[in-house]
Amino acid sequence: LTTSLPVLAVTVTPIAFPDPPLLNSAGVHEPWALRTIVQVHCGDDLIGLGETYGDAPHLALVERAAAALTGLDIFDVAGLRSRIAAAIGVVDSPDRHGLTGGSSTEKTLARVVSPFEVALLDLQGQAAGRPVHALLGGKVRDTVPFSAYLFYKWAGHPGAEPDEYGEALDPAGIVAQAHRLIDRYGFGSIKLKGGVFPPEQEIDAIRALRAAFPDLPLRLDPNCAWTVDTSIKVAEQTAGLLEYLEDPTEGLAGMAEVAALAPMPLATNMCVVRFGDLPEAVARGSVGIVLADHHYWGGLTASSHLATICRTWGIGLSMHSNSHLGISLAAMTHLAAATPNLTYAVDTHLPWQLGTDVVSEPLSIVDGMTRVPDTPGLGVRLDPDALARLHENYRTCGIRERDDTGYLRRFEPGYTKRRPRW
Amino acid sequence: LTTSLPVLAVTVTPIAFPDPPLLNSAGVHEPWALRTIVQVHCGDDLIGLGETYGDAPHLALVERAAAALTGLDIFDVAGLRSRIAAAIGVVDSPDRHGLTGGSSTEKTLARVVSPFEVALLDLQGQAAGRPVHALLGGKVRDTVPFSAYLFYKWAGHPGAEPDEYGEALDPAGIVAQAHRLIDRYGFGSIKLKGGVFPPEQEIDAIRALRAAFPDLPLRLDPNCAWTVDTSIKVAEQTAGLLEYLEDPTEGLAGMAEVAALAPMPLATNMCVVRFGDLPEAVARGSVGIVLADHHYWGGLTASSHLATICRTWGIGLSMHSNSHLGISLAAMTHLAAATPNLTYAVDTHLPWQLGTDVVSEPLSIVDGMTRVPDTPGLGVRLDPDALARLHENYRTCGIRERDDTGYLRRFEPGYTKRRPRW
Repeated sequence: LTTSLPVLAVTVTPIAFPDPPLLNSAGVHEPWALRTIVQVHCGDDLIGLGETYGDAPHLALVERAAAALTGLDIFDVAGLRSRIAAAIGVVDSPDRHGLTGGSSTEKTLARVVSPFEVALLDLQGQAAGRPVHALLGGKVRDTVPFSAYLFYKWAGHPGAEPDEYGEALDPAGIVAQAHRLIDRYGFGSIKLKGGVFPPEQEIDAIRALRAAFPDLPLRLDPNCAWTVDTSIKVAEQTAGLLEYLEDPTEGLAGMAEVAALAPMPLATNMCVVRFGDLPEAVARGSVGIVLADHHYWGGLTASSHLATICRTWGIGLSMHSNSHLGISLAAMTHLAAATPNLTYAVDTHLPWQLGTDVVSEPLSIVDGMTRVPDTPGLGVRLDPDALARLHENYRTCGIRERDDTGYLRRFEPGYTKRRPRW
Repeated sequence: LTTSLPVLAVTVTPIAFPDPPLLNSAGVHEPWALRTIVQVHCGDDLIGLGETYGDAPHLALVERAAAALTGLDIFDVAGLRSRIAAAIGVVDSPDRHGLTGGSSTEKTLARVVSPFEVALLDLQGQAAGRPVHALLGGKVRDTVPFSAYLFYKWAGHPGAEPDEYGEALDPAGIVAQAHRLIDRYGFGSIKLKGGVFPPEQEIDAIRALRAAFPDLPLRLDPNCAWTVDTSIKVAEQTAGLLEYLEDPTEGLAGMAEVAALAPMPLATNMCVVRFGDLPEAVARGSVGIVLADHHYWGGLTASSHLATICRTWGIGLSMHSNSHLGISLAAMTHLAAATPNLTYAVDTHLPWQLGTDVVSEPLSIVDGMTRVPDTPGLGVRLDPDALARLHENYRTCGIRERDDTGYLRRFEPGYTKRRPRW
């Protein structure tokens, strides 16, 4: 191995893939989900992969970052970070849908660094002949458990055919969806995305899931749709039913009020979204579980440092997911493999992508788990034809920034995003 | 590079080297300091180095650990940890001199893992053609600042010739010692090991240092020799003189009482010595600065996680030192190079070893700094002749466990270790 493997070129490709009409507290998923695929080239046979958000303001920053990386050694992650910081400057690029917590310049930098850090680890692993998990402290498990991620949803997008999962707008529909996902993937735990209907209806769905799946841990995530008082009431009414309640209300102060009275731990991917949130969260006791997400925590190594913090303070740990494809699934799997204190099954939207992917042989979820790759790097390879197709989708789909609220308003003109709503 | 580089053999060599009669709150350094040198062999030209304590109970654990590592891949740090945990069992091996804080099974495991983790990183770096700092997140500085470490001391060991530094038992002697160390090494900050004389005398020494070196930051470390009340009084009397006060009193509760009233931050290597100490230290506000030490925090990667915790909570960071040689100096330099928030110059005993070393070309301290190596691995190589000589010292010196108190008692039979003493 030579003592320098410089980055020769970086390719940034925005893509779009079909997404079902999944409902949440901000609206409904549009027909196309956006992502950005990063390829860091060090030669014909040495390419590192990363995957990140596809919204236009973020894509612009990723492109600016990519242009600054030529000549960087693949092992120089500190140089990666300083080059990107210089290239994008001090900017604050919020997620306008607001489903992954507040924005800050710290979080923006972390979010732009992330796909490149993953790509460098992929390259380092290939160069060293080792899987990425070996670069993150080493594998402590051979499989990684994922959770079934249930959504209230329409049968299909308005004007289109119903998708294969069909409608789920009441407890029976949610239970049917759970059966379908579990039959197909073998998930051993269940999360329901809530914040869509009044809390009583969502509690009814949780009760129906408990009746249908007496042994599976259940979670409910209303994305901050509730007041503190409503959150406390729901927590009391779901005592014994939930392994955790996720982001019932907004902010570290409100979460702490709920946590003090809730019989189950509270999880978050909205009020603890960067290292700077941790001191107040710990001091207030706002959360019992952090749902890490390497896409906005700054990459895999930063996430492994977050894991050490959670272990040190006795905070539970799992992972959050947005719509994603196989590069992110592999990255999440390597990180989880190297994280001793992964205390809950990981979230993934992957089943909702209905088989679409950019990698030629994606990891599969069998018995609710991915098998941790032991091949060099991330262990997945880009499918160039799929990338071209998905980029063509991006070119023609007309969507440039995720807008769940605006899309729902097309069909329900009176709809407004309100937080809290109940 | 192959996808497996198994450990073929591990050599564990206890060594002893001459140590001057340095005084501290537990007694005085014996004529020989003990260390253990670890060599992890993956082939004739591929050897990883580690350096750790030499006390007999620790050496026994290191030898037990070494015997369990054959066949381990050099990138499998998780496997290293689990093999060592299984090999040594749940044991608690305290440092009887008590100068590096309380003991625990967590700390014992971390202390045994550390030299092997350093050796694996040395091997990984050599295999990947990269310096160790590149495996710790990347270099953020080209030089690492060290501090002059002053000791009250006798002219020489009783019955032996005076050493080249001579006696330092009063402010004038301390100032003369500082001049000598700074002339030779160019240090830009000064630490005085206290806890030897009544606090007023040590404050006088600090005042004399301030007069002699008006621009250099000063630190005082009595190793918990004082009560809370004495600590507060000394802190008030040294207001404006010290950049920090180190371990004035014992325990997180006492330190918090002092910290609340002291005009300068408190540093520690005695009350925060493992991850499990951090939550209480943060909650109480016991310390403003953690003096990390990879020898008992579990290695370099664990120390880099500690650094993230310090940055997150706004706690200052530097490094503690015991008597050590050039492998540890290189390891500390790589860690410091990859630590953005190294906020103070690092401690080192190295000048007191008077040129003795086990490596053929040790890093040198010039203008108070080491230059960060960019060669693969740690960047230092063992000198086999030196190792043999130092091992022969060990064989014949008769010391098997550090005992500063017992050694002082030979010359002052009435001496007792008391904490607090004042």
